[in-house]
Amino acid sequence: MKIFLRNACAVLLFLAVAGCASTTPEAPRADPLPSWNGGESRTRIVDFVAEVTREGGANYVAPAERIAVFDNDGTLWTEQPLYFQALFAFDRVKAMAPDHPEWSNQEPYASILRGDLKSALAGGDKALVELLMTSHAGMTSTDFDDIVTDWIASARHPATDRHYNEMIYQPMLELLDYLRANGFKTFIVSGGGIEFMRPWAPEAYGIPPEQIVGSSVKTKYEVIDGVPTIMRLPEVNFIDDKEGKPVGIQHHIGQRPIMAVGNSDGDFQMLEWTTAGDGARLGVIIHHNDADREWAYDRGSHIGGLERGLDEAGQRGWLLVNMKNDWNRIYPE
Amino acid sequence: MKIFLRNACAVLLFLAVAGCASTTPEAPRADPLPSWNGGESRTRIVDFVAEVTREGGANYVAPAERIAVFDNDGTLWTEQPLYFQALFAFDRVKAMAPDHPEWSNQEPYASILRGDLKSALAGGDKALVELLMTSHAGMTSTDFDDIVTDWIASARHPATDRHYNEMIYQPMLELLDYLRANGFKTFIVSGGGIEFMRPWAPEAYGIPPEQIVGSSVKTKYEVIDGVPTIMRLPEVNFIDDKEGKPVGIQHHIGQRPIMAVGNSDGDFQMLEWTTAGDGARLGVIIHHNDADREWAYDRGSHIGGLERGLDEAGQRGWLLVNMKNDWNRIYPE
Repeated sequence: MKIFLRNACAVLLFLAVAGCASTTPEAPRADPLPSWNGGESRTRIVDFVAEVTREGGANYVAPAERIAVFDNDGTLWTEQPLYFQALFAFDRVKAMAPDHPEWSNQEPYASILRGDLKSALAGGDKALVELLMTSHAGMTSTDFDDIVTDWIASARHPATDRHYNEMIYQPMLELLDYLRANGFKTFIVSGGGIEFMRPWAPEAYGIPPEQIVGSSVKTKYEVIDGVPTIMRLPEVNFIDDKEGKPVGIQHHIGQRPIMAVGNSDGDFQMLEWTTAGDGARLGVIIHHNDADREWAYDRGSHIGGLERGLDEAGQRGWLLVNMKNDWNRIYPE
Repeated sequence: MKIFLRNACAVLLFLAVAGCASTTPEAPRADPLPSWNGGESRTRIVDFVAEVTREGGANYVAPAERIAVFDNDGTLWTEQPLYFQALFAFDRVKAMAPDHPEWSNQEPYASILRGDLKSALAGGDKALVELLMTSHAGMTSTDFDDIVTDWIASARHPATDRHYNEMIYQPMLELLDYLRANGFKTFIVSGGGIEFMRPWAPEAYGIPPEQIVGSSVKTKYEVIDGVPTIMRLPEVNFIDDKEGKPVGIQHHIGQRPIMAVGNSDGDFQMLEWTTAGDGARLGVIIHHNDADREWAYDRGSHIGGLERGLDEAGQRGWLLVNMKNDWNRIYPE
């Protein structure tokens, strides 16, 4: 009886699968990139994905090597009027100020506490690094995770009043999903702090913590009062920007990506390294030219400057995404 | 007509799937751990996996957090009579010697070239580090990858005459597969070189390059004669051993594992960090006590010394795997 049933089942299953596959009209496939208008940008992305996933094709790439890397600030979320991580650092200074009365006479803290961001930034990189060390070190990695998690849930952007993790780009979310649906593994490779991104980026982008690469402070493992901890030290470990990006990629990912997406000259070397590999490669630069819906900036911008990338994208075959024309929507609902 | 067919298909599919699921007798499941004998080790591993994967259970862990980390030397493959990477370094010195006539009078090179490994190692850590820098740096990451790939395909172990990647532990391969089949993500966290492992470990263990954490030299991105390259510099970047292991875990993985497997006191902090987390955790030490089939060593060994781990495994609830009794096989066929 059981054997009979099994055979009957096999026949039924065969009929169901074989018959239905050939006679059911194809359901119209949902557009995987609804926020991307038709045009060259969309076409080149779709063609690239088709090319590297077509088995037997000259440029076929096995799934294990379908590595796509994305800058974060200005590529996956907004970076104006200032890197969101800098705004986070300012908020940290304000929160920590009651324990630091000396800050009222000490730059850049005094300017931050007065709300004078221009003066706060006047000290240049040195002041910024000191600010980051003060606000991002001296606690355990677990405590820092909690601080970032609280901040992202409560802080709001000065211009849009949105939570910062609501200022991620809808077209990029669709692109990430589309790539993953086609067997790609997606990574973030950002100048931003690796531990600043990990508390919220996995949920925002569907990218797990181990696929997030960024700048970091040195850390130290120690058992404090019987509790194992990882302490964040006020010392730079790695700057994942410019020439640092290929280094960060090799260190964390261990193979050369086939696709890289950025928006500023800080991403130039990442695109250069990626597209110098053999076979089909895609380098993409998101060009911020939409002052109405987001921001418009490139040459000479205080954040996300784009000059060499603009000059050389054409000759290098990199796709320059025109935010204004290519995207019919910026942020998620 | 099409609608009719579609409905008919749906009915067929329903009958096939629903009917067959309930009446087909269950096929006997293949044992996922055939090289593990019955006993406490096997039972504790299987119970742990059942506990963290039982939905609704008190200790259920979501797949995204099912992180398992494995030391490599002595845990996934043999490490006697000397770390295989040291044997690789010796082979490199021999291959490079024709370009370095000065080595015939210079330690540790002279001893290596004479085949006197004991004297070669007499210089301690300083000599070893110099040896590693000489043999592992001064080339691009791509060239180093090729060198390691060639070596692993050709070199043979002095005692077994096996290729080194044939001296991986069959029971550990089964454990890795078993964990992955249960939704775990498996990582290597080794004192060995991250770039030394990546050329062969993905195929050997089914672990992709980005899930391999290890020690590293500093690298530098530069465009040489128009070719983007990542140069390996003769400078230590990170030592992924002892207190370095939790640091490497946090840096690369970004979350605390729920399971850690090692074999020496170099893995102590990794197990300590892992098992100090909340909920169900499993720390495992592979105890090399099988001189007949592999090697027997623990306290005072020149490689893979195990003292604190032996002393404290019991009180910390870590599983001590008895290689001799728990494994019915060491290497793959």
